[in-house]
Formats: sequence, C-alpha cells, structure tokens
Amino acid sequence: MVIIGVMGGSKASPRDMEDARELGRRIAREGWVLLNGGRPCGIMEASARGAKEAGGLTLGILPGGPEEGASPYIDLPVFTSMGSARNVINVLSSHVVVACPGNLGTLSEIVLALHAGRPVVLFNHDPGPEVTREAPPGLLARAKTPAEAMDRIREFLARQA
Amino acid sequence: MVIIGVMGGSKASPRDMEDARELGRRIAREGWVLLNGGRPCGIMEASARGAKEAGGLTLGILPGGPEEGASPYIDLPVFTSMGSARNVINVLSSHVVVACPGNLGTLSEIVLALHAGRPVVLFNHDPGPEVTREAPPGLLARAKTPAEAMDRIREFLARQA
Amino acid sequence: MVIIGVMGGSKASPRDMEDARELGRRIAREGWVLLNGGRPCGIMEASARGAKEAGGLTLGILPGGPEEGASPYIDLPVFTSMGSARNVINVLSSHVVVACPGNLGTLSEIVLALHAGRPVVLFNHDPGPEVTREAPPGLLARAKTPAEAMDRIREFLARQA
Amino acid sequence: MVIIGVMGGSKASPRDMEDARELGRRIAREGWVLLNGGRPCGIMEASARGAKEAGGLTLGILPGGPEEGASPYIDLPVFTSMGSARNVINVLSSHVVVACPGNLGTLSEIVLALHAGRPVVLFNHDPGPEVTREAPPGLLARAKTPAEAMDRIREFLARQA
Repeated sequence: MVIIGVMGGSKASPRDMEDARELGRRIAREGWVLLNGGRPCGIMEASARGAKEAGGLTLGILPGGPEEGASPYIDLPVFTSMGSARNVINVLSSHVVVACPGNLGTLSEIVLALHAGRPVVLFNHDPGPEVTREAPPGLLARAKTPAEAMDRIREFLARQA
Repeated sequence: MVIIGVMGGSKASPRDMEDARELGRRIAREGWVLLNGGRPCGIMEASARGAKEAGGLTLGILPGGPEEGASPYIDLPVFTSMGSARNVINVLSSHVVVACPGNLGTLSEIVLALHAGRPVVLFNHDPGPEVTREAPPGLLARAKTPAEAMDRIREFLARQA
Repeated sequence: MVIIGVMGGSKASPRDMEDARELGRRIAREGWVLLNGGRPCGIMEASARGAKEAGGLTLGILPGGPEEGASPYIDLPVFTSMGSARNVINVLSSHVVVACPGNLGTLSEIVLALHAGRPVVLFNHDPGPEVTREAPPGLLARAKTPAEAMDRIREFLARQA
Repeated sequence: MVIIGVMGGSKASPRDMEDARELGRRIAREGWVLLNGGRPCGIMEASARGAKEAGGLTLGILPGGPEEGASPYIDLPVFTSMGSARNVINVLSSHVVVACPGNLGTLSEIVLALHAGRPVVLFNHDPGPEVTREAPPGLLARAKTPAEAMDRIREFLARQA
C-alpha cells in the first residue's frame, strides 16, 4: 500500500481546509492510504474527512494516548503518547509528505522529512529559503492546487518504484 | 475499526508459529485489524501471514526506519526508528493485546500494556506471579487455543463497548 | 562518570523509602551519578534526596515536559514528554540499574534493561521466575541491604571496566 | 542548575567550531550545564570541549544507544536510541537553546524549541523568514559573537526567573 502523509495546521482558513479535503478525496480515489497527525481539527481533520468521503483508509499518528481520542475520520489511530516526537514517525512512515499551510508543527515535519530523506510536496506552503537551500536535491516540489499536488506525488512515487 | 495487537517472540516453535498464524486468520475473519511489531520473523510474521491469508488488514509498528523494511505480510508499516520505545505504541494502539510465547520483548509489552490499562490475553504465555499480582483487576485473561484466545478478545471488547 | 539508575515505585513503604535514601547516599559518596525517573514521589524522590544529602549529582529522566516539573532533589531534569517510553532511556543510560520495590513501571524497567543487555541489581524486588529464566546470563544480581546493593553494583562495574 | 542547549551542525567551519568552543567555555565559567546532542563531531564536540576546558559539566542526549558511544567531552551521556526524536528532548530540557550554524537537524531543533515555547538564541544562524514569522513573541534573539550569545542567554534567563 502507498501511504501519503498530509501535514498542516491545527487551525486553517476555510479555503485551505477545502483544499486539504479535496486532496484527501483524491488520495483515496487513487487507492492510497492517507496518514496524518490524527487530531480532530484543522488540516488533519479536513484531509481525513475527504479521504473517508471517497471511501479511503486513514491512519492517524496521535501525540497523545487513547484517553485523548482521535478524529472520527481516522480509521486507524496509532497512539504514541510521545508529543511532538511523533512528528518523526509521521514523516518516516509516509512515502511522500504533503505540507499544507500550517505553523511550527508543520514546519518541523517538513524539516524532519527532508532530514530523513523523504520527499515533500509544498502545497501552498513556503517554508522559506533556508529549507529550500538545505533540502537534499530532488526532495522538494511545489503545488498550488489539489490536482497539482497529486501530480507531484505521482512523480515522486514513480521515482521510488 | 477494532485493532488487536498480537505480540510474541522473534523466534518461536513451529507449533507456536502455527497457533499465531491461525489466530491471525481468525482476527481477520472477524473484520478486525491485526497490529504487531512488523518485523519479518517469529510470531510477528506468522500472525500477519495468517491475517493476510484470510484477507485481513495488518498494521506493523517497526522499531527501525524505512531502510530496514518490514515483513511482506504487513500492509501498513509505521516506522518509528525508536527501538524498544515502540513497544509502548504497540500496546497503546491495541484495543486488546494478545501475548503469545516470547521472551523479554514480549514480557515488556505485557507489563507496559497492564501499566497503561490495556487488557491482555495470555495465549500460552505465563509471565509469572509478579505480573499476575500487579495487574489491575480485570485486565488479564488466559487462553490455550486460537479459539479460546478469540473468546477472551470478544469478552474484553464487549466490556469496552 | 559512572551513572547508576535507581528504579522503584511511585508509592513505597517507609522502610523501602529509607533503604532507597540510604542507597542514594552511598551512590553519591562513591562519586557516582544517580539517575532515576525524576518525579517528586516514592523511591525516585527518596533516592535523589539521599544522593543530595551526601553531596551527589542527580539526573532525572521525566515522562512529562517542563511544565510538569521534577523533584526538587533532581539537579538535571531531562524532560522527554514521552510517557513510559522514557523507561527505555532510563535503562540505556545507566551503567547498572538497581530495582527497588515497585510495581508495573519498575517491572517494565527490569525487563527493558535485561532486553537491552544492561545489568540489574534486584534490591528487595522479586520479578518472578519468568524474568529470571529469560535474563541473559550474568545480568541479574540480588541484594537485601543498601550495603549489599553497593557490592553488587561494584561487581558489575568491575566487569564493565 | 541552569541548562543551556547548544545545537549546530555535525560538520562546521573552523571558525564556527571555534565560536562554539568559546561559547562552551563561557557557559561553563558561568556555572551553567551545557547540553547538546552528544556525538563526537561538529558543533556538538566543539561546544562540549570548550565547556570541559573551563571545568564545566556536559550532558549529551544521544540519538543512538550505548554501543554507539558519545563524545569524550560528554560527562553524562543520555542514550535514547530514538534517532531524531531525541531532538525534542534536547529542546525541552534546555532553559535556553542556542542555535549555531547547522543544517536540517539544527533547523528542526529551532522549530521544535519555538513550538514548545523555549527561547532560542540564533548565533550566526538565520532560519529564514518563515521561522521568524511563526515564532511566538519574545522567544527569538540573535547574536554574532560568543559574548553576544551570552548576553542574550542572560536576558532570557532573567525573564524566566
């Protein structure tokens, strides 16, 4: 199974939420599994919701334990109780990481992904020149629409095959 | 989705391997997801193999990173690169933990599961009197066959519902 | 520097607390660093208090973050925010682990220590026959008094030198 | 005890190494503990070496286990065997984090520190406009010399007191 990680802010604009939801739908239609941080808010919830609307499978890597729960759109909650250290698991477990608009948590995932050699699609997210400069060659791509993000994911997957 | 964790040794006798494989089949037939440590050996591999033979879904929580790979019977490898600390994730993420015969790794998972308040089915595994004495009431059950293990799992799930 | 890990229950009898405090004093007098779980209770607090009374240095590996604090007898709190996963760090970072009376948390540390090949002194703690049977040869010793525990620690250190 | 985290690249220019070493010396002279990633290379080794030259105490949070060892300038190696997840521990355990020149690992520590609300001194390190924009107010300062870095550390500590 192909696992696509979708990262983004726990708060997001209506437009970014809609984009994440549409991306989730498209990932599911492709038969890929959607992985995210599993919490019931922001880009996480929106992308999982989209994936479920299209009949997909969703995997959430939670910072807390079972008592803290997960988004209802997550099929498989993996409870780490490890706080932000779970961000490392998110990126290691994704064939491709998509970074939607977000804040420091999302930025940490972009940086940790590149550090671990995982490809990252920047979907309306600009992490700045430092990240671009330090990224290993061939691991960063950019997209402005869900369709473009899907194209970039496909290109990365083709190279991994 | 119901997630059943199946723990056990990375080396195991042919009989214990066969029991784990049959348990995997039964878990899959019930429509439950099988979670284990994801490595290509022992009880892990046998239980995942059984689950796949019966058309189930398997989730592996790996101690290593993507470069170290996973069992081919694991659909969804979650790479932690956290060594034995991933044992905590295994037990937190399982509705019920089944402990097959194993060694210190499996024993750590029994202890960590009980410590976190997760129910444990001891399937031909005797962790000794200390564990039995310290276990919170109602979290330990015993089984000698795959069918009995399934009964114990069902009883625990009924109480969680 | 030699680091001695002292594990034990977050609740303990007055006699076990006094033993842990005396062990802490003796560890400090030897010039060794005392490592424990860092919380302000039980064997952790007692052993750190003893070490500080004798002018020693104390290192606490906390399950929580800085906002949850540490025992006032801990000089160096290492905040993991990783819950029970920090138990792995405790045992990997200790040259010798001493297990005082405790419950499931302490038992998990005994098992994880042996699993990682670290020597364990059982100080009035009986983890049961399963642990004894599974322990790699030469990694388990027993003690009934602080003086005996110190002898066992010295013997393990001599073998590591 | 005050713990100052010094982060930076595993490879560094001679000038950046000398700056880190001098910063280590000054941290030690102040009576503060130096925390870093503990490996025997780059800014880590240089800062720990400086601290030891000035008679200080050094604490290293290692990504690997005891078999992989630590820099000889580290007094207290804390072995996590958790790879990059230990970066979270580094920043949670430091009263102030100093980011020397480095690459993606260092950048992840800046981001994780700010995300966790820990103050960061950027010592000849520019993480770019995204980090600056997302940083919570009052958590970022800049320095160009070891003396300036010490001033910024003192200012942050004064606010925490």
